[in-house]
Order: sequence, then structure tokens, then C-alpha cells
Amino acid sequence: MDFEAFFEQQLQSLKNDGNYREFAELERHRGAFPNATCHNGPGEVTIWCSNDYLGMGQHPAVLAAMHDALDRTGAGAGGTRNISGTTHAHVLLEKELADLHGKEAALLFTSGYVSNWAALGTLASKIPNCVVLSDALNHASMIEGIRHSRAQKVIWKHNDVADLEAKLRALPKEQPKLIAFESVYSMDGDIAPIKEICDLADKYGAMTYLDEVHAVGLYGHRGGGIAEERGLMDRITVIEGTLGKAFGVVGGYIAASSKLCDFIRSFSSGFIFTTALPPSVAAGAAASVKHLKNSRTERETHQARVAEVRARLDAIGLPHIDNPSHIIPVVVGDPGKCKFISDTLLKRYGIYIQPINYPTVPKGTERLRITPSPVHSIEDVERLVSALEDLWTQCELARAPMAAQ
Amino acid sequence: MDFEAFFEQQLQSLKNDGNYREFAELERHRGAFPNATCHNGPGEVTIWCSNDYLGMGQHPAVLAAMHDALDRTGAGAGGTRNISGTTHAHVLLEKELADLHGKEAALLFTSGYVSNWAALGTLASKIPNCVVLSDALNHASMIEGIRHSRAQKVIWKHNDVADLEAKLRALPKEQPKLIAFESVYSMDGDIAPIKEICDLADKYGAMTYLDEVHAVGLYGHRGGGIAEERGLMDRITVIEGTLGKAFGVVGGYIAASSKLCDFIRSFSSGFIFTTALPPSVAAGAAASVKHLKNSRTERETHQARVAEVRARLDAIGLPHIDNPSHIIPVVVGDPGKCKFISDTLLKRYGIYIQPINYPTVPKGTERLRITPSPVHSIEDVERLVSALEDLWTQCELARAPMAAQ
Repeated sequence: MDFEAFFEQQLQSLKNDGNYREFAELERHRGAFPNATCHNGPGEVTIWCSNDYLGMGQHPAVLAAMHDALDRTGAGAGGTRNISGTTHAHVLLEKELADLHGKEAALLFTSGYVSNWAALGTLASKIPNCVVLSDALNHASMIEGIRHSRAQKVIWKHNDVADLEAKLRALPKEQPKLIAFESVYSMDGDIAPIKEICDLADKYGAMTYLDEVHAVGLYGHRGGGIAEERGLMDRITVIEGTLGKAFGVVGGYIAASSKLCDFIRSFSSGFIFTTALPPSVAAGAAASVKHLKNSRTERETHQARVAEVRARLDAIGLPHIDNPSHIIPVVVGDPGKCKFISDTLLKRYGIYIQPINYPTVPKGTERLRITPSPVHSIEDVERLVSALEDLWTQCELARAPMAAQ
Repeated sequence: MDFEAFFEQQLQSLKNDGNYREFAELERHRGAFPNATCHNGPGEVTIWCSNDYLGMGQHPAVLAAMHDALDRTGAGAGGTRNISGTTHAHVLLEKELADLHGKEAALLFTSGYVSNWAALGTLASKIPNCVVLSDALNHASMIEGIRHSRAQKVIWKHNDVADLEAKLRALPKEQPKLIAFESVYSMDGDIAPIKEICDLADKYGAMTYLDEVHAVGLYGHRGGGIAEERGLMDRITVIEGTLGKAFGVVGGYIAASSKLCDFIRSFSSGFIFTTALPPSVAAGAAASVKHLKNSRTERETHQARVAEVRARLDAIGLPHIDNPSHIIPVVVGDPGKCKFISDTLLKRYGIYIQPINYPTVPKGTERLRITPSPVHSIEDVERLVSALEDLWTQCELARAPMAAQ
């Protein structure tokens, strides 16, 4: 077999469909984010699609903690968690995270992807005869974890508790059940009916696994996520979160009972056989979590900026998906057009919004996903909306699919 | 089902078998590694089981690059590689890695585990009818990647080219084949017959996938690994490596043709749907790779220190697995005894060597895995060997299984 020809043909097929991805090569300016240099683009740009939702990636407390950890302990952890790689910084961070979610324990992973893949994969494969009830729009990392477990999987309609109950009712009463879902769904920005799902979990004796990666740091009095905001943290068996979005660093975690965390710690291949995160990363993340437990300014300014962008888009009649979160999706519905708009925003206006296409969203729902942050100024918002207005006025290509929304 | 009782029972079963893991909580001292404070142990200790093989985790060039990146660009990347998370530092690191291995391109992952899981998983699942020929002792991350692909898998006897050829010969000529193996095997320290495997790959038209995580930085004129040392890099289709061991930071990568890397970049769930590594991590890793391309002092001192430890163990008749690498495994063969020796080394002598037990090694081969480094002084070596001699003399528990080796 000619492997190179096969790769070429597969890549060409992506290009033909408009789904070939080109990465913007960015260099942020600390203290001036959302501004950055785009090395393979027009130079200076304003980033409008980052998941560093609160700008914590440049917060002085986070950076000071990282510098300090580098000075005191060096670069890497030097081993897996079991073999010399558990540092004091990891242990402190896990305590911080357990406290954030009101749980007995927390367990760190190298990424949010790995935490979902490893935790769901281990629970579903190790609990005998476990069935996973998975929301239809769960993230790829959850889907891959469930798939990897080879446990029985039942998909319920997105955010549809009636469908979830029908699926639960159809399963044998004694069969161990795990309901896996997210709070804020990343691409549409809608939010799960967590309380109703917990009620069903109680009724049918199921565990609940809630991915809060797009909510931790952003919602709840101390940044514990939507479950905290709604007073439901104690009703969730496993809360999964990330340190790479609102907390501004990198890494993933679960928070749960001591026994559950110890079980994953002891049996999960994706936890055991991997080098631990650098202590500087753990220290920076802990500083970020700690800061956002006590400071509400970032969350309030974030919500105000999101409302401002929405109001201004409404004022110029630019349709966006209505949702209760901080994510503003503007659906274009065609990969080529979406890329064209994104390219023009970048080149002509210095505004960077990556086009989101398949497989991140279903084909036909390609979109611009706008993520305002407290570090976007009102002038940034004005420039964004004015650029979009120009484009929507000048560019017939884009106007039609938008109007059809 | 009572989930908590289930977790408890599973954990108890590990404890009964002596396989329950307790992590040492360490705090390294930058500039003084291998010394560290053990927060849940006796205080000051010398680490003898780290995979920071060369002490690059405290190299001034690495730390300066990380500090500088933090100052210039902040903490996290803020997104997936596609959505605002590709930084200038990532692109420079990928160029550095491609150059290290003499390949057209390289692709970064969040860890070595993820690079194996994602790259093997994607190749084996996407290449139609692909069969993976996997060495029997491949790392968990490779096994899980192959398992995840659901491709046909054929396991060949560890490092046995005759068995590999028999397995290749038995497969249909036209079936796409991928041979997956490691260079240095982590737990026994033995090294694969890479040339003979490449010869078979050529003969049977197979791709080769070589995991060099325990070799990059350590072997070859520029630290390209065993394949560089033996002049074989151009014969390997995919070289996989880590930035978390000899390079002292964290992260994983593959180096291969541009098309192959672009293919993985474009189709691999574990690459696409995860937040990129922090730019400071990428910058630190690039500095480490660059330094070790030009400096051979670390590799030479490393090999000298390994030879020194081996010679002194031989002098006191303490048996260790003979191998051509830098890894010195002292097999105890029982999880309880192994843990007892490790505990005593820690408490009485301030020497930290984590006991290695199942599932990292097969049951019955529990061991101390000693990893000398250039930052261990001759006095450190003397203290280690003297402590082991004391223990082997005083501790009948340990002497018997050791002598049976």
C-alpha cells in the first residue's frame, strides 16, 4: 500500500469539502491579551475566540505562582504520579479543587480530554455490566472514553429529560447506570437541566458524571460552575473540569468522593502511565482557582461584556444562537463561506475568530463562535461589531445564510 | 448498586495483594536536584527513580526560556490548536523536533501517552484494513491506542525478529501493515533490534512506528535517540518521543513525513479536541532539545554515572538486570517485600526509589528501578550502594529473592 498517497488523498478530500484546518500562529502579549501577533497572518490582531474566558492566563497572581514554582522546583515533574512525579504543588491543587466543588477529593489529569477519557473509560469498563447514558451532544473526549470502555451505551436526546427517563425506565433495575452530560455545551452555549437529571438519577439509582469545563471559574459564587450556581454540587457524583479555559493554564480534573478518586487513581491507565504536569502548571492553576474563589469582578465583567456584544449584534440585526451562557455562536452554515468571513475579518480588520467546522460541529452548522472576555474593552466590542456589520453589508455571500437563520 | 462499596472492595483487593500505590509527595529544590523534600515522608531525600534522566528540569537554559515565555505571553495557550491555541512557541518547537529526527515535520501532543494513543489509534483506525504488529511488551499507551482503533492486532514476541517475520509472512501481502515497537523498554532497559525490524518492514511493505521516549535526548550524536545512534532514523516511518523525560518538561510528539503529520493533525480526536500546551512549556522544551543537540556533556556524564552504579552493585554482588541502557532494574519479585525495602530506604537512608509493581510490571517481577543521572554525585552513588548493601545484609526478607535472580 502507498501510505503517502493515502494520506494525500484523505487530506485532499478535506480540502475539497472546505474542512481542511489552517492554524493561526499566534503570539500573545502578556498584559495586552486579547491582543496578539499573528505570525502567519496580518500581524497584530484581537483574539475573539479564545477559551481563556476571563483572561486569567495573564493574571499577575497566576504568573507569579508559576515563576515562583520554576525558581523553587524547576521545570518538569520528572515522572508519573507514582514514580517520583507527585509534587507538593499537585497535592495542594487537588485540595483546592476538592474544596471548590465541595467534594472529599479531586484527581488531576494532564488535560480535560484525558480526564474525561480516563475517568469515564475506567468507571464504565470496571463497574460490572455498567451502562452509560450519554447525552447526544457530549464532547469527543467523553464519547471516546465511553467507546474505549466497551460498556453498553445508550444515547439520549440532547438535554431532553423525558427521553432520558424513557431510556432509564427501559433498562433493568439492577443494572449499574452512569449518566454522563455537560453543563454548558461548548458550541451552542446551551445549559443542561441539571436538577431534573439528578432527580432521575436518584429515582433510578444512577451515578451522575457532569462535565463543567466551560463553566468552572465562570459560574457560581466561588466559580464552582453551573452546579454551584444552582446549588446542586452535592447531587453530582463526579464533577469534571479543566484548568485550561477560565482558569487560564492547562490540565483537567475530576472531583468526587475519596473512594471514587482513589479508584480512578489506582486503575486508570490514562492516569497511571503518564508524566505528571509540571509543578509550575499546578501552582499557576491553584493560584487561579484560589483567586476566582474570592474575586467576583472577573465573572461580573465577563457577563456584562457578553451582554454588550449580544445587544450590539441584535441592534444591527445579526442573528446569533440564543442561549443562557457566555458563548455567542453565529452560524454561517457552510464551511467555505465561514472560512471566507473568518479570513476577511483577520486580513481586513485584524479580528481573529477561527471558523468552526466539522468534526467540531455537524456539517451544515459551521459557525463563528465569539467568546467575549473581561479583557475585551468596549472599543474592542465596537470594532468587532462594526467589522461584522461591514462584512454582512458588503458580503452577499455571508448575508444570505445568516438571514436564513 | 452500592458504588462506594464496590470502589472500597476493589481498593481493598489491591491492598491485600500489596499493589496499592502510595505516592511520595515531593518538592524538588531547583539547582539541587536529585535532592528534594518528601512532605509525607522523612523530609530531605535523594531521588533515584526519576525520568528526568539528565536533570534538564533544572537547566538554566530551560528555566530561562520558560520564565521569558511567561513574561512575554502569559500562562496558557487559551484554546485547542485549531481555535486560537497554536502559538509561535509551538510552531518553533515542532520545527526543532522535526530537525532532531531528520523528518519533514513533527506534531506536538499534550503528553507522550496521548501521542501514542492518538497517533496509533488514528493510523490503525483510518487506514483501511490496517493490521498492527505490536511488540508484546509495548507501553500501555500504545496498547490502548491500538485497542481504541479496533484494528486487527498481532502481537509478536518481545524483540524477537524471527517471530515478527513469521507473523508478517502469515498476513495477506496486500494488507496494510504497521509495526509498533519501542527502542529502550522502560522497565527492563533492553533495546530493540531496530535495523532488523526495518529490514522486515521493507521486505513486507510495512510502516514502522518507534517509541523512543526513554531514548530521546539520551542517545545519538544530537540526542535523536537509538535510531540516530544506529543511523536508522530515515528508515523509521514515525518516531514518537516525549518532552517529559530526558528533556525535563512535559508533552509528547511524533516526527514523520509532512503528509503523515498533517493526516494525524487533521483526523485525530486526541489531538484536535484538547487545549494546547502552555507556550512556556513549549519554549522550555525547545530550549532543552536545542541544548542537547549541541552539548554532549550531559549524555557522557550520564553514561559514566550509570556504569559507576552498575560496577559498584556488581562489587557487592547485588544482582540487577543486565541491559545496554541507562536503566538499572533490581528485581525483588514480591510486591510486599519490594515496598518494604523501598520504605526502609526512604525512612532510614533518605533514599527515594519507588517500588514498581503491577500493572506497570508483571506480577512476580516487582522491582526497584534505579535511574542514575549526571546530577547524582559520586557521594550520592556511594550512599546509595552503601544503603543497599546494609539492607541486603540486614534484611533477610530481601536477600532471598535477590539471590534467586
